[in-house]
Amino acid sequence: MESFNVHILGCGSAKPSTRHNAACQVVEIRGKLYMIDCGEAAQIEFACQKLNINRLGHIFISHNHGDHVFGLPGMISTMGLLGRTAELHIHGPEKVRELLDVTLGTYCQGMEYEVHFHPVDTTRHQLVFEDRSIEVWSLPLTHRVPCCGYLFREKPRLPHIRREMIDALQIPLSQINNIKAGASWTMDDGTVIPHENLTTPAEPPRSYAYCSDTAYRPELVPLVKGATLLYHEATYPEELSDRAQEYCHSTSQQAAKVAREAEVKRLCIGHYSLRIKDEGAHLREAQEVFQNTILTHEGQIIRVE
Amino acid sequence: MESFNVHILGCGSAKPSTRHNAACQVVEIRGKLYMIDCGEAAQIEFACQKLNINRLGHIFISHNHGDHVFGLPGMISTMGLLGRTAELHIHGPEKVRELLDVTLGTYCQGMEYEVHFHPVDTTRHQLVFEDRSIEVWSLPLTHRVPCCGYLFREKPRLPHIRREMIDALQIPLSQINNIKAGASWTMDDGTVIPHENLTTPAEPPRSYAYCSDTAYRPELVPLVKGATLLYHEATYPEELSDRAQEYCHSTSQQAAKVAREAEVKRLCIGHYSLRIKDEGAHLREAQEVFQNTILTHEGQIIRVE
Repeated sequence: MESFNVHILGCGSAKPSTRHNAACQVVEIRGKLYMIDCGEAAQIEFACQKLNINRLGHIFISHNHGDHVFGLPGMISTMGLLGRTAELHIHGPEKVRELLDVTLGTYCQGMEYEVHFHPVDTTRHQLVFEDRSIEVWSLPLTHRVPCCGYLFREKPRLPHIRREMIDALQIPLSQINNIKAGASWTMDDGTVIPHENLTTPAEPPRSYAYCSDTAYRPELVPLVKGATLLYHEATYPEELSDRAQEYCHSTSQQAAKVAREAEVKRLCIGHYSLRIKDEGAHLREAQEVFQNTILTHEGQIIRVE
Repeated sequence: MESFNVHILGCGSAKPSTRHNAACQVVEIRGKLYMIDCGEAAQIEFACQKLNINRLGHIFISHNHGDHVFGLPGMISTMGLLGRTAELHIHGPEKVRELLDVTLGTYCQGMEYEVHFHPVDTTRHQLVFEDRSIEVWSLPLTHRVPCCGYLFREKPRLPHIRREMIDALQIPLSQINNIKAGASWTMDDGTVIPHENLTTPAEPPRSYAYCSDTAYRPELVPLVKGATLLYHEATYPEELSDRAQEYCHSTSQQAAKVAREAEVKRLCIGHYSLRIKDEGAHLREAQEVFQNTILTHEGQIIRVE
């Protein structure tokens, strides 16, 4: 099956720790890379994980807080220093533009590539971007500033050819792409072999939903329904649920509740507060509500399947 | 002797590597911390080295290139998140103000402490700052944008009391501070014991000169004459001296030449280009010109003595 992985570059929260980096993930689909959030030192972790910077064309920013954007100036100017010529596209709330303007205006003069900013309306669930492999949809979140998550939905793949049918019917190889694309086959005697008999269906499209930062938000449930993998922030343990509410963050059980109600396949949690002393206990709290939950950590590669 | 140390937080150059961080050092004098340059991830390395953020009151920026300033937004906003109330002072070329304005205007609202920016005229050698322990002087450098180094010069220390004289002459302890400060002592019979007989001289003041980034610049020699420790960038090996000249950087032998002619006690080098494959060879090139040379590396604490 074609690759669809999530690389964790940082899963800490706003106050830095020696244990976790600021927020950053890289989604890898069919060899292309898409970054989500870009906290300080993202470019360093990116290099440590030996990801290929030339495969990165799009960065999606959830909101304009420092721990989600302070890696952008370094990321952008390093691409320039490395002689990049391909365009870079940055998607995010309008307010992000200011940091980009200073970065490009002051630190990136003479660079040979273009950076395009695409403002995202964080209040709406809509298609933000698509290419041949994926669609990216915004997911409105509840935070102290305009904020949205992103849903990466793989485009339907082509069905598999039934090799034994092709051989038996002596269908020329030149027709295989047409058949994959939906064509039937007409025999010399006029008999029509329907497409369905020549192929087996493709695997159902996979999807990854990234939701950080947000207060508990039941409105998310229909938007991430049935996702293959859901990342939901879980900044605080249950005992600090007052604090979660005050700062518009979630507890581990609130994250798990969204996962359970949306019937996702798997949940991963992160954006850990420094107040979490025992991440194992944090995980167990979530698993009480939704069993198939894992913790994120830097360097981790989570397969979306 | 009272502490005077240089902590190396980053000694790489503009293109990031997995081996070195972007430029950042912390000078520690008598318990107080002064940061020089603030490349990306400075706050992370600062925490890893267990330096006390409350002891940091001043940051000195050499020039407005990304690898020397991209750590400022994170550093400043983290101080706010940690509830800092003491003022923070940032010294550097006028152009740094722009990044500070975005940082403070957008990412630090509601912070309880004040950040003051003090523009530095990089074309002049002058006193930039002083407190009870030190003077900091600017050192004009030759780079592609306005750039200066900084000379940290310890203020003269008080002489040491000769305990045996105090005891023999039965001088009251209450007088010791006066004597340290320069007073003589008059006996009951009117005999004056001169200050010099009651004390031994303090150690000569120590100094640390930080020079990054710069082309070879002989005009530095008189300004750093006799420094206890000189940091001089050595971006390129000798074989890339053309490149050094083109980008206004120095080779290891040029750094060593400044050290030799200024008769400093010790030289440390850094700001390593990714093109340096063998740092040992890089060091040996410098040592051919000035023997007492060391390489810098992250986590290192260099004593100024």
